[in-house]
Amino acid sequence: MAAEQDPEGRAAARPLLTDLYQATMALGYWRAGRARDAAEFELFFRRCPFGGAFALAAGLRDCVRFLRAFRLRDADVQFLASVLPPDTDPAFFEHLRSLDCSEVTVRALPEGCLAFPGGLGEGGVPGLEVPGPSLVATNAARLRLIAGPEKRLLEMGLRRAQGPDGGLTASTYSYLGGFDSSSNVLAGQLRGVPVAGTLAHSFVTSFSGSEVPPDPMLAPAAGEGPGVDLAAKAQVWLEHVCAHLGLGVQEPHPGERAAFVAYALAFPRAFQGLLDSYSVRRSGLPNFLAVALALGELGYRAVGVRLDSGDLLQQAQEIRKVFRAAAAQFQVPWLESVPIAVSNNIDEEALARLAQEGSEVNVIGIGTSVVTCPQQPSLGCVYKLVAVGGQPRMKLTEDPEKQTLPGSKAAFRLLGSDGSLLMDVLQLAEEPAPQAGQELRVWPPGAQEPCTVRPAQVEPLLRLCLQQGQLCEPLPSLAESRALVQLSLSQLSPEHRRLQSPAQYQVGGRPLQAPVDSLCAGASP
Amino acid sequence: MAAEQDPEGRAAARPLLTDLYQATMALGYWRAGRARDAAEFELFFRRCPFGGAFALAAGLRDCVRFLRAFRLRDADVQFLASVLPPDTDPAFFEHLRSLDCSEVTVRALPEGCLAFPGGLGEGGVPGLEVPGPSLVATNAARLRLIAGPEKRLLEMGLRRAQGPDGGLTASTYSYLGGFDSSSNVLAGQLRGVPVAGTLAHSFVTSFSGSEVPPDPMLAPAAGEGPGVDLAAKAQVWLEHVCAHLGLGVQEPHPGERAAFVAYALAFPRAFQGLLDSYSVRRSGLPNFLAVALALGELGYRAVGVRLDSGDLLQQAQEIRKVFRAAAAQFQVPWLESVPIAVSNNIDEEALARLAQEGSEVNVIGIGTSVVTCPQQPSLGCVYKLVAVGGQPRMKLTEDPEKQTLPGSKAAFRLLGSDGSLLMDVLQLAEEPAPQAGQELRVWPPGAQEPCTVRPAQVEPLLRLCLQQGQLCEPLPSLAESRALVQLSLSQLSPEHRRLQSPAQYQVGGRPLQAPVDSLCAGASP
Repeated sequence: MAAEQDPEGRAAARPLLTDLYQATMALGYWRAGRARDAAEFELFFRRCPFGGAFALAAGLRDCVRFLRAFRLRDADVQFLASVLPPDTDPAFFEHLRSLDCSEVTVRALPEGCLAFPGGLGEGGVPGLEVPGPSLVATNAARLRLIAGPEKRLLEMGLRRAQGPDGGLTASTYSYLGGFDSSSNVLAGQLRGVPVAGTLAHSFVTSFSGSEVPPDPMLAPAAGEGPGVDLAAKAQVWLEHVCAHLGLGVQEPHPGERAAFVAYALAFPRAFQGLLDSYSVRRSGLPNFLAVALALGELGYRAVGVRLDSGDLLQQAQEIRKVFRAAAAQFQVPWLESVPIAVSNNIDEEALARLAQEGSEVNVIGIGTSVVTCPQQPSLGCVYKLVAVGGQPRMKLTEDPEKQTLPGSKAAFRLLGSDGSLLMDVLQLAEEPAPQAGQELRVWPPGAQEPCTVRPAQVEPLLRLCLQQGQLCEPLPSLAESRALVQLSLSQLSPEHRRLQSPAQYQVGGRPLQAPVDSLCAGASP
Repeated sequence: MAAEQDPEGRAAARPLLTDLYQATMALGYWRAGRARDAAEFELFFRRCPFGGAFALAAGLRDCVRFLRAFRLRDADVQFLASVLPPDTDPAFFEHLRSLDCSEVTVRALPEGCLAFPGGLGEGGVPGLEVPGPSLVATNAARLRLIAGPEKRLLEMGLRRAQGPDGGLTASTYSYLGGFDSSSNVLAGQLRGVPVAGTLAHSFVTSFSGSEVPPDPMLAPAAGEGPGVDLAAKAQVWLEHVCAHLGLGVQEPHPGERAAFVAYALAFPRAFQGLLDSYSVRRSGLPNFLAVALALGELGYRAVGVRLDSGDLLQQAQEIRKVFRAAAAQFQVPWLESVPIAVSNNIDEEALARLAQEGSEVNVIGIGTSVVTCPQQPSLGCVYKLVAVGGQPRMKLTEDPEKQTLPGSKAAFRLLGSDGSLLMDVLQLAEEPAPQAGQELRVWPPGAQEPCTVRPAQVEPLLRLCLQQGQLCEPLPSLAESRALVQLSLSQLSPEHRRLQSPAQYQVGGRPLQAPVDSLCAGASP
């Protein structure tokens, strides 16, 4: 995997990618003499997406990149001046020019860690992005759970992402959530996501069969001996293959074969056939076998076939049968296990079918349903002011759901002696932390009375990431965070991990404040 | 409105924001000696989104920006070299370095024009973006149709867009589709979208009421006479207001009032109150009135109030009633018509309620449901090779839906004498164009026999935008395209325009080829 190439945020959000009210409020605070007051914000969410019981925390790298690069350029300040009142004091714009994040502190869940409804991440100034639950990463993790650990999952949703750059985020978080690779080249270049891709139908249909390659010769894999005209060799193999399959030698499309030969000349060690431009059985499959066997004679092994239409599971079974028979017939054992890749609007349901016991599908390409999250295309998060200058702040609205809990929080994850997750506990920052091996009384949400737990391990959930603008510890790599996702999921009990109608994971409050739901009752408005 | 600041594509997609198979195929074509073959691609879609009968064409500006800026930089070529076979001929990378779009021709529907399932836009080389139907623009147009022409619609979905930059696209196309403004500052800076925004709950809750502004004085609007302590003036007005409303003067939250005063000091000509941080009736509304009346005494008029929770329609009615009574009581007629803005997860259904006859809501902020299109978060488009070197190309798969029609196309929109849309006609490029006033036989899709139409006007649909890399005519501004959207929608008959169960608009084929559905039957595979 390529290393991350963009540590300093060329691809990060620009400072003006924000809501205008951040600028109008900044002027309001400045005019009130409060521009340098310390404020504490908290990000949380109220319900897990997709009807599941977990979400994945993600966005820490993007957040840190953004914060470290944050500076308003002259053009940015000029634009803000053009949309703020014309008589705004020029000193305010000087203030904007001087802003950076050298006084910002961020506490957050580790990247790739499980997140449950409740307190999550905190940022020290208004208007900044902080890491939170990631819809795409959570979605990708669900798809990985359905697919099981063996299937290779390729994210290929770039063309369905929101606008040109929505795709960079979607590809990065699909990988974090458990996909193996992405078709998105920029995600490889800027984020180190492994990239994959071979050929489209247009490549196949662009050949008529009458093209003459400038150099049809291919040298053997071992590099010794004379080169061979691959097209001519494939033509010879086609006759054997057609005889074996009971097809007329005219049936396979000559343009498709020419396309396969062209691709094999360019990628002799990574030849893959896209089988369904014309007819899989009568054209794609025999043409692939002819070219793969011709390559095989030169010591190269084809790396796969791909299907993009029709009944993918059933065709994969038939293709595997043909591969086995041809492997025996032509004495090329490796042909048996050539990976079969499929794609075509695969959602959770279709994926479950493709991943079933006995499926011959090896690689699954998913686009739309991983990047656009059609089951739930957005995840409502709440980003609220909880303290100013150390004093708690809250909102009390007509809508009880929109009330917030005042004050700075701490959160802990309690684990059993087998390493499984028991529950999360949310409390005020100044309260003593739960201790491993000690009994603890907590209020589960909505409960009438507290319950008692004795955790074998206690993990503080919010880590100090950035203090006064300085990174407190090196950020894990994307691949490390991706591994944490799978580890975290393995610690979750099956009843919380299951995707349909899971049991809700409990996030309790400490009894000092009574139930977490009524914490706000003790605060003065 | 600010002019478009990014004509040359700083915010456009980078060349590597593409699927890897574009690079692997490029190597395949190059190895086959076909890297400079002229190819023609066609973009179309099969079904309108959201169960409607129309979509909006959009993306032309982004496409042209991308094409004109297209160049692989050294770092891009190096990254591609790192993911292609290590023994790839270095001459291929020289070829990549030399690539630009100086030979590309693009024909497309005009930006903001109605698009129906069928042929749409064409691009001259593989792997390039071409303009197509825009899900967000179509969604925004639907919301505008529901809201009617009078309500002001503000897009505020940045925080729900896919990743940092998904929001730029979403804001731009929401405006194109009929919204009035966006909260997204970058969309203002780079795309000229009018931006709007005032204050969040955190601004209100950050004030306790004990803050002392460094300069509490505000000069009169006319600029003559001494300044006034706005907070003190608002306190005086609060007593009148509370007496008028039958509230105790201690009931309105002092921190909320201090926040309103702070905002009014910064924006005396654009004061707006966010009413629901504590209690609308007992706090937000009296505090707003006190500050607005204090401002009014100095000659300033408040520009609005905003609600973000509870029953928005009902509260708006009550607030208007209070405004009317207060306007009479305090003899400030302008108070009657202070705009009421609302937000809070507004979808099509909630919007219809807010836009009903007699509603007192004036401004509606919509976030999630315009930018993420929850009814249908993606729109499947097809981008297919239709000709190489002038020769038609097609795909014949197991899945009849995935077959494509070969050859270069032309498309025409037929209009009646009243300017209303009759139907679109799709034909091969070489056929004679339909003529206004002349009878024309066309095959509606799925029909057993052709029908006859006599269009009063005929509009060719595909315009030549880019020829050999050169812009053929200046692109319309975003605001001009936005106006075209509303004009186009007005030409659509009510049965096609309605949002639920509309009649399908017909896209017919020319009888020379028999029905458009069977065009492919006449082509050799």
